[in-house]
Amino acid sequence: MSGRPLPPKKLRRRLARPESLANYVVKARFEDLPDRVRKEVGRSLLNWMGVTVGGSRHRTVDIAIAAVQPFAGSQQASLFGRKERLDIMNAALINGISSHVLDFDDTDLKTAVHPSAPVLPPLLAMAELKPINGRDFVTAMVMGFEAECRIARAVTPALGDIGWHATGAAGVFGAAVATGRILGLDEERMCHAIGLAATQPVGIREMFGSMTKSFHPGRAAQNGMLAAFLAEKGFTSSLQGIEAKRGWANLVSTEHDLSIITEGFGDSFEIYRNTYKPYACGLVIHPVIDGCIQLRNEYKLSADQIDRIDVDIHPIVMELTAKKNPKTGLEGKFSVFYVAALAITAGKAGESQFTDQAVAEPAVVSLQQRVTASIDKSVKEDQARIKIRLKDGRVLERFVAHVIGSVENPLSDAGLHQKFSDLCGGILAADKMQRLAELCGTPEKLEDAGDIGRAAAA
Amino acid sequence: MSGRPLPPKKLRRRLARPESLANYVVKARFEDLPDRVRKEVGRSLLNWMGVTVGGSRHRTVDIAIAAVQPFAGSQQASLFGRKERLDIMNAALINGISSHVLDFDDTDLKTAVHPSAPVLPPLLAMAELKPINGRDFVTAMVMGFEAECRIARAVTPALGDIGWHATGAAGVFGAAVATGRILGLDEERMCHAIGLAATQPVGIREMFGSMTKSFHPGRAAQNGMLAAFLAEKGFTSSLQGIEAKRGWANLVSTEHDLSIITEGFGDSFEIYRNTYKPYACGLVIHPVIDGCIQLRNEYKLSADQIDRIDVDIHPIVMELTAKKNPKTGLEGKFSVFYVAALAITAGKAGESQFTDQAVAEPAVVSLQQRVTASIDKSVKEDQARIKIRLKDGRVLERFVAHVIGSVENPLSDAGLHQKFSDLCGGILAADKMQRLAELCGTPEKLEDAGDIGRAAAA
Repeated sequence: MSGRPLPPKKLRRRLARPESLANYVVKARFEDLPDRVRKEVGRSLLNWMGVTVGGSRHRTVDIAIAAVQPFAGSQQASLFGRKERLDIMNAALINGISSHVLDFDDTDLKTAVHPSAPVLPPLLAMAELKPINGRDFVTAMVMGFEAECRIARAVTPALGDIGWHATGAAGVFGAAVATGRILGLDEERMCHAIGLAATQPVGIREMFGSMTKSFHPGRAAQNGMLAAFLAEKGFTSSLQGIEAKRGWANLVSTEHDLSIITEGFGDSFEIYRNTYKPYACGLVIHPVIDGCIQLRNEYKLSADQIDRIDVDIHPIVMELTAKKNPKTGLEGKFSVFYVAALAITAGKAGESQFTDQAVAEPAVVSLQQRVTASIDKSVKEDQARIKIRLKDGRVLERFVAHVIGSVENPLSDAGLHQKFSDLCGGILAADKMQRLAELCGTPEKLEDAGDIGRAAAA
Repeated sequence: MSGRPLPPKKLRRRLARPESLANYVVKARFEDLPDRVRKEVGRSLLNWMGVTVGGSRHRTVDIAIAAVQPFAGSQQASLFGRKERLDIMNAALINGISSHVLDFDDTDLKTAVHPSAPVLPPLLAMAELKPINGRDFVTAMVMGFEAECRIARAVTPALGDIGWHATGAAGVFGAAVATGRILGLDEERMCHAIGLAATQPVGIREMFGSMTKSFHPGRAAQNGMLAAFLAEKGFTSSLQGIEAKRGWANLVSTEHDLSIITEGFGDSFEIYRNTYKPYACGLVIHPVIDGCIQLRNEYKLSADQIDRIDVDIHPIVMELTAKKNPKTGLEGKFSVFYVAALAITAGKAGESQFTDQAVAEPAVVSLQQRVTASIDKSVKEDQARIKIRLKDGRVLERFVAHVIGSVENPLSDAGLHQKFSDLCGGILAADKMQRLAELCGTPEKLEDAGDIGRAAAA
C-alpha cells in the first residue's frame, strides 16, 4: 500500500491554499502572536499545571500507571506531581489523565473542549526529551489550541449531541499539530499528521462519570503525538482527512461548517476564549457560589446570622444539581444547596471542599437545609440571583450578571495563583511550587521549556 | 472521578445475564470448542502469519518502526519477518500493520472485518511476554473473533456506509477481549475493558489507498490491549459501553440490531465464515482470475494461442477495476484486464505478480489488450463468466459459481500452505518456514504459544 497517488498539480494547489489549516500552523511565527495571546498562554499553563499536580495522586492515575508499566519505555519524561518517570508517550497519557481527573481544567465554553489537556502533555514531554526554547513551545501550544478548538467549533453542537467527548474527538488535532510543530513538519507532512489524527478520534460520552472520562484527553494526546511521529518519518494518510466525504467531519457529526476552521487565522485566537474554573465543581452552580461569596465577604457573614438563602437559577441548574443532601464529595459537586451553604461557611469551593468529610460538616449540613432554589427563566446559564435573609431581618441581595471565570469576567491572575497554590499545596514543597508557578507564567522566556516538566515532578 | 456508582443489585443482575457478551467470553472453555473451530483456528493463523511475514519488509512498516523507536520500551516481543524486537504494545502495532499492508489477510465477508489483524498481534505479543499454553491461546483468539465479528455484524452495513473501517472500529473489541482472556479478567473487568475499547474506535475510510489503512488494525490492536490492561488494574468505564444511548453503537452507526451480539453463543462461531484470499488483489476480481486459471490449467493454454478473452462480471467489478493499462503494481491490483491476462501467463496472482515490473511484462501487456469486460447483472459478486476464443477457432467457457476463497469454496489446506510459502519464501529460511507453518497449524498443542512469535522473527 503506497501513498495515495495524488497528481502533483493537485497537491501543489492544495498545499498552496493560503487559508489551509496545515499551511497556517506550519508557518505561524512567535513574533506575530499578539501580547494578549502570550499573556493568556501563561495563564492557561499555570491553571492547567495546578490542576494536573492537584489531580496527580488520584486513584485513577495510580491505576493507569500500574497498567502501562509492564510495557512502558525508558524514563524520558516526568509525571507531574509524582516521582515516577515514563517514556514520552506514556507520560503524555498519564499527565493527560491527571489533568482532567478533577474536572477542574480550562474550558472553551463554545465547544466544551478542554484545550490544554490534549496539547500540553505531549508538548511538555517532548521538551524533556530534547530541549525546546520557550518561544517555540508557546507557538506550538497556541497552534495546537487553534487546531482543536477551530475544528471542534466547525462541528459544534452536533459533535456532542451525537455523543462524542469533544476534548478527545477534536483534541487529537491539537496534540498532532503541537507535536508536529515541535518536530518541524513541513506542510505536506502536517497534512498527513492531521489525517492520522482524524482517523483516531477518542471518547464517547457514555463514559462520563467513570474513570474513562479523564482517559480521553490522555489518549487523545497520545493519538496526536503518534500521528505526528509517523508523519515525520513519511507515513501517508489523506490530505483531506477532515473534509472528505468519508472523513472525520462526516463521521463524527451530522452538521458542520468547515469554513470556521480557517476563517480569520491570525486575527483572532481561540485562546482568547479560554476560561478557568474558580470552583472545583460543575460549572452551572458557579454563579450561585460566586454571589454567595461576594455577599459573605462584603457583609462579613457567618452561618449563624442567616435565616435562609433563596437562589433564582437557570433551569439547567435544577436539572443537574438538585441533590438536597449529598453524601459524598462527588455528590456535593452536583448540589446547589450544598455549594450555597459552603460558600458562606468556607468562603471558597476548592477541591478540598468536596471530600466526603466536607459534605458531612454539621455547620454546612444545617445551613443547606435553609437553602431554597427556584427556576427563573430570565436568569441565564452563567447568572444567578441570591437573596440572603438574616435573622436580624435584613435582606441582602446580589445578582451575578457574569460569573467569575467566564470570558466576560475572567478569573484574575491572583485568583489563578491562589487556585494553583491550593491545588499543589499538599503535593509540592513551597519553594518548588513557587518556582513552578514562575516557569509556567512566562514560558516564552525560557531557554529550555523542559524545565517546566522537570520542576513539576514531586 | 470515582467509578460510576451502580447499585449493587443492578450490577449483579446485569453480570448474571447469561447472554451477555462479557459473561460468555470470560466463561468459554477450550473443551467446548468444536473440532471445526480448532481446525479453522490453525488455518486462520497459518494464513495470517504468511501474509504478515510477507508484508513485513514493506516501506510502510519500515516507517512505522522508525516512528515509534524514540519512545519504545524494552525488547519484549518479536516483529514477524524482521530482526527488531519491541515492547509488546509497539510490537502489536507493527505486526498489525505488517499483516494488513498487502491487503491479503483473512476476511469475514459479512462485515468486511479482517478478524486476525487486531486479535493476533496482541495475543502473540502477550505470549512472548509470559508463557501461555496453546489451549488458552486458541480460546482467547476465538473469543476475540466472536466479539469483533458479532459486534460488527450488529452495525453492518451502517458502520461502513457512514465511513468507518470495520477492522479498526470493531477490531478494538477483538483485541480487548483476547487480551482480557489472557489477563484472566473477571466478568466485571471484562465489561470495563469492552467499554474502554468502545471509547477508542479507529479508522475512517477516507484513509483507504494510503499507508494509514494498515495502521488501523495495528492501532485497534493497541487500543484493545490498553483497554484490557487498564481494566485489569481496576480502571472503570461503563458497563453499557456498546448499547447505551451515547455508547459505541449509536455513535458509529445509524441502524443496528444488538441482539446479534449475543445470539446463539456457543452454537455457531464467527470463525466458520473466515475466508482466505488466494490472490493478492481486490476481492472483486478473484472470480475472473479463478476462471482463467481453471481454463489455463485444464487446456494447458499459453498466451500465444489466445485470440481474445471476454469476461462477464458483476457491475461492482467494472466500478472498481476498469483500469485498462495499469502502470504500477498497485494499479494492477485494480485492473480486471491485467489480472485476466496475468492468470493465463503466470497461472497465479500472488504478491510478486503485482510489482511495477510484473505489470510491464510485454506478454501480459499484449494479452490484456485482447481482454474485454462486460457487465452482466445476473452475475453475482463472487461469480464470473469467462469465454476464451482461441486462434484455432475453439471457444472455451467457464462459469465460476463460487470463487475459490469463498465460504462455499474455501481455499484448500494445500492452497494455504502454498500461499504461506510464496509469501515467506524470500524472508525466512526454508527450515524456519517449515517449523513456523507447523506451529501455526496446530497451536492448541503448544505448551508455550510464545514459540510462534519467536519462530516468526527473521
